[in-house]
Amino acid sequence: MTLPHPNTDQISLPIVLGVLGDPTRLAIVRYLASKEGVPLNCSQFLDLGSKTNLSYHLAKLREAGVTRAEVVGTSRLITLRRADLDSRFPGLLDSVITAAGDDAALPMIGGHNIEVPA
Amino acid sequence: MTLPHPNTDQISLPIVLGVLGDPTRLAIVRYLASKEGVPLNCSQFLDLGSKTNLSYHLAKLREAGVTRAEVVGTSRLITLRRADLDSRFPGLLDSVITAAGDDAALPMIGGHNIEVPA
Repeated sequence: MTLPHPNTDQISLPIVLGVLGDPTRLAIVRYLASKEGVPLNCSQFLDLGSKTNLSYHLAKLREAGVTRAEVVGTSRLITLRRADLDSRFPGLLDSVITAAGDDAALPMIGGHNIEVPA
Repeated sequence: MTLPHPNTDQISLPIVLGVLGDPTRLAIVRYLASKEGVPLNCSQFLDLGSKTNLSYHLAKLREAGVTRAEVVGTSRLITLRRADLDSRFPGLLDSVITAAGDDAALPMIGGHNIEVPA
């Protein structure tokens, strides 16, 4: 089973910005960026909301082209589409991650650098 | 008469991103950036929508801290809050403006570099 993702050239600036305009989704992106190269699964974001709520936010990020989700057994492994976003919108993801990193108003996962038990 | 604006330290990342997640508002920001230093009034954006519609979008941008609107007589002179945004979120506005500049899907004002008659 594969989930639908936009191609790189289908990633839309207003849609990406709109999807990032949410504290929970920004917190997810910040956490993914802090763990870059390590695919994470949904349960690692449970500090941010219920499973239903997270599924909704993770689908929004995937459908906008911000993240990739691979179905592996019963898990979905989630990564940032950094290369795709950097090629479409140079500098945008980095500036968002930097700003989100400084934003104490965003919800946190663990101590934000601390592993959360799955 | 002065209109309400957030202070620089009240400008919120998720709110700014959410407000920029709209084609008309991105087109307004792109146009303001192309005329930087020249305050524009509402009538210069009429290619993008009705006056009522523009008032709504311009209020959203002002309330988020993206633009400043000064009431001068019967006009509102609108400028980008570049210095404030750059100090809050370094690189963000530039990356958005660059990406918006390449985005043929956004609505245009005139030829986007052509003066629109008031």
